[in-house]
Amino acid sequence: MQSLKDRILSDGKVRPGNVLKVDSFLNHQMDIHILEEIGAEFKRRFEDANINKILTIEASGIAIACMVAKSFDVPLVFAKKNQTKNIAGDVYSSRVTSYTHSRVYDVIVSKEFLTADDRVLLIDDFLANGCALEGLIDIVDQSGAMLEGIGIVIEKHFQGGGDRLREKGIRLESLAIIESMTDDSLKFKD
Amino acid sequence: MQSLKDRILSDGKVRPGNVLKVDSFLNHQMDIHILEEIGAEFKRRFEDANINKILTIEASGIAIACMVAKSFDVPLVFAKKNQTKNIAGDVYSSRVTSYTHSRVYDVIVSKEFLTADDRVLLIDDFLANGCALEGLIDIVDQSGAMLEGIGIVIEKHFQGGGDRLREKGIRLESLAIIESMTDDSLKFKD
Repeated sequence: MQSLKDRILSDGKVRPGNVLKVDSFLNHQMDIHILEEIGAEFKRRFEDANINKILTIEASGIAIACMVAKSFDVPLVFAKKNQTKNIAGDVYSSRVTSYTHSRVYDVIVSKEFLTADDRVLLIDDFLANGCALEGLIDIVDQSGAMLEGIGIVIEKHFQGGGDRLREKGIRLESLAIIESMTDDSLKFKD
Repeated sequence: MQSLKDRILSDGKVRPGNVLKVDSFLNHQMDIHILEEIGAEFKRRFEDANINKILTIEASGIAIACMVAKSFDVPLVFAKKNQTKNIAGDVYSSRVTSYTHSRVYDVIVSKEFLTADDRVLLIDDFLANGCALEGLIDIVDQSGAMLEGIGIVIEKHFQGGGDRLREKGIRLESLAIIESMTDDSLKFKD
């Protein structure tokens, strides 16, 4: 998606430790226009899949997933990162190790909102080593739902998570794939 | 907002401890149609205010705020609940005590995304005792931005947070105001 790549080049900032900051338009402050374009692009790429639910994980995936859900005209579910008093009863749960935050947490979805009748598109802002996504995939598997595909805004290809998912036969669409990144250059994969 | 009140009555569930679960359509699974209606309703109510930014707090406010931002055609910023590696440098920060989760946390917004030029509408799903909102108001004050108003989807009036904000002269619009709530009845304020 060219407009996204242009925006990453103009407004993204590379920080030590393979961090790409896009928080001026994607995941802290959000530009509603680029979110709408992203929603429309995922709809185009997964047009043929019979998707009836969008699943993401809090917090930075939610606004993106919301505009994707609008494009598909289906409900959105977001997985929570910790058990809260307000999610009582039966939940699917999967343990995830976060590279970004150096911590371990449980990803949780209420069983009410994901069933064997669902055909799910997973959405997230970043894919690096893929650990958070593997937690979501595990939850989709537990529910018996069909995983139709995964839509990622920015894939850091050099961190390997994307290829590991593709090798499993999962349909993965990333709107911008970063081949390499140093303090003063950022190269997209063709 | 009548369609919201109807939805709360048909799909909401009252749980012990003054908990109203609306997670089938508002804050775990989200119905994109009701989110769009909510966005349009806040636009109608704050039409005269010259709002250029929507501010909310992770996680359950984000999807709502996203559709409000779309209605106003302005950017959205969400406050984070903990310092993460990816928010470096200068931030506004305010300490909040959560009634729902029985814990204390810091609310954080990068200084880059809130300045004295901003005219802000705060958006959240619930208003009970108002502690999270007071953290956001504190952050708006720190930034020098103008607080144009607060838009709440469901106000639990009997918990007092809404009236405390109104007494301060803050413009507060709540789409459904709950007067009282017991295990088998729920009464809206006129």
